Amino acid sequence: MRTPDDRQPLPEQAASATPEQTLIARRRRLLGPNMSTFYDQPLHIVRGDGVWLWDADGRKYLDCYNNVPHVGHCNPRVVQAICEQAATLNTHTRYLHEGILDYVERLTATFDAPLDTALLTCTGSEANDVALRMASAMTGKSGLIATDATYHGNTTAVAKLSASNRSPHGASDHIRWVPAPDSYRPLGGEAGQAHADAFAEAVGTAIADLEASGHGFSALIVCPHFVNEGFPSLPPGWLQPTLAKVRAVGGVFIADEVQPGFGRLGSHMWGHQRQQIAPDIVTLGKPMANGHPVGGVVTRAEIMTAFRESYRYFNTFGGNPVSCAAAMAVLEEIEQQGLMANALEVGAYAKQGLEQLAAHHQVIGDVRGQGLIFGAEMVLDRQTKHPASAYTDRLINAMRQRGIILSKLGRHKNALKIRPPMPFQRAHVDLLIETLDAAMRETPVEQD
Amino acid sequence: MRTPDDRQPLPEQAASATPEQTLIARRRRLLGPNMSTFYDQPLHIVRGDGVWLWDADGRKYLDCYNNVPHVGHCNPRVVQAICEQAATLNTHTRYLHEGILDYVERLTATFDAPLDTALLTCTGSEANDVALRMASAMTGKSGLIATDATYHGNTTAVAKLSASNRSPHGASDHIRWVPAPDSYRPLGGEAGQAHADAFAEAVGTAIADLEASGHGFSALIVCPHFVNEGFPSLPPGWLQPTLAKVRAVGGVFIADEVQPGFGRLGSHMWGHQRQQIAPDIVTLGKPMANGHPVGGVVTRAEIMTAFRESYRYFNTFGGNPVSCAAAMAVLEEIEQQGLMANALEVGAYAKQGLEQLAAHHQVIGDVRGQGLIFGAEMVLDRQTKHPASAYTDRLINAMRQRGIILSKLGRHKNALKIRPPMPFQRAHVDLLIETLDAAMRETPVEQD
Repeated sequence: MRTPDDRQPLPEQAASATPEQTLIARRRRLLGPNMSTFYDQPLHIVRGDGVWLWDADGRKYLDCYNNVPHVGHCNPRVVQAICEQAATLNTHTRYLHEGILDYVERLTATFDAPLDTALLTCTGSEANDVALRMASAMTGKSGLIATDATYHGNTTAVAKLSASNRSPHGASDHIRWVPAPDSYRPLGGEAGQAHADAFAEAVGTAIADLEASGHGFSALIVCPHFVNEGFPSLPPGWLQPTLAKVRAVGGVFIADEVQPGFGRLGSHMWGHQRQQIAPDIVTLGKPMANGHPVGGVVTRAEIMTAFRESYRYFNTFGGNPVSCAAAMAVLEEIEQQGLMANALEVGAYAKQGLEQLAAHHQVIGDVRGQGLIFGAEMVLDRQTKHPASAYTDRLINAMRQRGIILSKLGRHKNALKIRPPMPFQRAHVDLLIETLDAAMRETPVEQD
Repeated sequence: MRTPDDRQPLPEQAASATPEQTLIARRRRLLGPNMSTFYDQPLHIVRGDGVWLWDADGRKYLDCYNNVPHVGHCNPRVVQAICEQAATLNTHTRYLHEGILDYVERLTATFDAPLDTALLTCTGSEANDVALRMASAMTGKSGLIATDATYHGNTTAVAKLSASNRSPHGASDHIRWVPAPDSYRPLGGEAGQAHADAFAEAVGTAIADLEASGHGFSALIVCPHFVNEGFPSLPPGWLQPTLAKVRAVGGVFIADEVQPGFGRLGSHMWGHQRQQIAPDIVTLGKPMANGHPVGGVVTRAEIMTAFRESYRYFNTFGGNPVSCAAAMAVLEEIEQQGLMANALEVGAYAKQGLEQLAAHHQVIGDVRGQGLIFGAEMVLDRQTKHPASAYTDRLINAMRQRGIILSKLGRHKNALKIRPPMPFQRAHVDLLIETLDAAMRETPVEQD
């Protein structure tokens, strides 16, 4: 049942195709259409080391984007841990093994009581998929609340949480979306406490709506730093009124720490700690094992027990000795290399650099950042705050051509998304800011 | 919010605890209750090599159970591939990389046209979760059919397919279960073609029921060798009448090859090839990268396109260069070590050994096997076929004490489940059969 398209000559067969065109054509043939790549001219990366990546032509790029290689590309401690354990034993958790126990003990020690048990998965998506069932097991209800600009993963159950990714088939009427916080354009036009209260009110309204719908309210799931929403500048404690709304009705608060966790914010190991809130469930993913597929859920014993008693759950690869060795090496590296202190100091330096750039570039409407998640929102007019979305796209492509890898995000796709590997240094910030200055000088704003 | 239980002294703190008791207590504290282990006396495995495992006391076990380390525990080619790629680059698929393309090209070459595109995930559960959405994208419907003794994975959407694992919350009324095939106790009492037709009829009835229900019929998902159902002896072509029923109404046939795939049956690379059927979607998992977390979905371009156009899907770790290198090494090892031919020959020798045992042990009611999935169903009486479930449990525990690792499965948990790593040799079979003979002589049947 070949489609006619399959009979057309593929560019990869053309003598004139560049190596990249050949790869793109092979991707389309082998992986199907709509497999996204970054940049107008996709990168063909072949090697990584620390905060650097190299393409097939030997060109070097400063990686200001990838948060998965948390302790640096090809971190020697992580690579050694993987090699040694892969050569010794890799099996499942139905045998006893110290690796998972030592890791979970060390991991949960970074959380505040009573978050002292963990379940290990292979991805953050699997972790959030489990977290939703834990909430169901606790509450006996199914209604969920998330922000309207979030992403929590790719399983059937979790993908439904993305308002922009609604299923073409199958109802999601157990989900309510609340407006994502936005410190640059706050709800009701007011920042600070009024903004926090407005968000909590929106959550309260959604709770009441779910309770009236028959689904009941099970859980609110949010990234406590709202990274996908554009990491708005929210003061510590901003989420406390929201947590109170959830607690008041016996709901479950799930903090998705896939992005802000593992010390990236510099000031705290976990985003919810900076927010001075105690979530019921915390989910982990991307940076957990530096790219080796590991995710996890941390919760209190009461919730873990409710889940284990309500659902049979076994994950063949989850918590295997190699994955645990890789994840343990990441925790060790964060501690021994002082990567949290580095994130705090270098992140503040980077934010300062962006603020200095804003003095010369009117297109920068807002500079935001905390630790090694930072960026700037681009606007056509600082008064109207009209998003410079097309400009931002041109700028990140110009940066790619100049050897700097970064991306964009936010509701209007007009915020620079900068979240480099944690060993990022001041010298890297200098190169980033200098290159950004040069690229901005040569990228016309008026095309928007 | 500590529970009272947390304040009780834990066995791990007791001076008299054995090392295993200490580990079990730590598991309960750190991972929660109901984390299953194998055997009355759980194994504490610390090292693996080929078909052998060693416990913390240095005791050696013949591994007749683990299908995940497909090409052998700590296979040197796989370990080297992981180490080399982990030290070179590990990143996501939004950059171009030859690793995923070379792997998918080689993988899809083992399938019959038009199954020529693939999507890579981190687990078989994620693969099945995607497959269900592919079916939905093709049919616009949501109804699913599975057998009543199956397991297809652990995500919220996929776990609902297990009749024995129904969700305490959230409806699954889009699922219909059909009786699992059983060659020892065939539907309607007849084996062969009548059995095949009866299964197809049951699927046809479920299809009609789903179409009438409003859900519509989207997909049938089955393991083409029915491994979890107890790997009944079904002749090639047995599934053809069922496939015809699915095709007649424009439904999707999903073959879950997590267990029979990658050459385990010996005669064919894939279980559906032995069944002489052409499924629409094939899902892969466990053995795919020898324990490194990799899963995948293979389908034709038309279905991949429908999925990609209906759903946005990105998997951060899926298809990363390290995972692809590990998976590629598995394919190379299967080919270069001649592991399919080995599975066919050694599997036949093992089945013969079990048949000889059956001559001396009345408790063996049925010997079944194809390649390196084989076993025997234990019964209290060969006439009534009453399952010897408790005996089977005692037997596998006795085997563990004698240094042989195997397990049980099937609706009555009375079938020995033997599916060793693929480099299993005749000498290993001899040790297995001799030990089984001795253990059976010393394990009383009458306690059942």
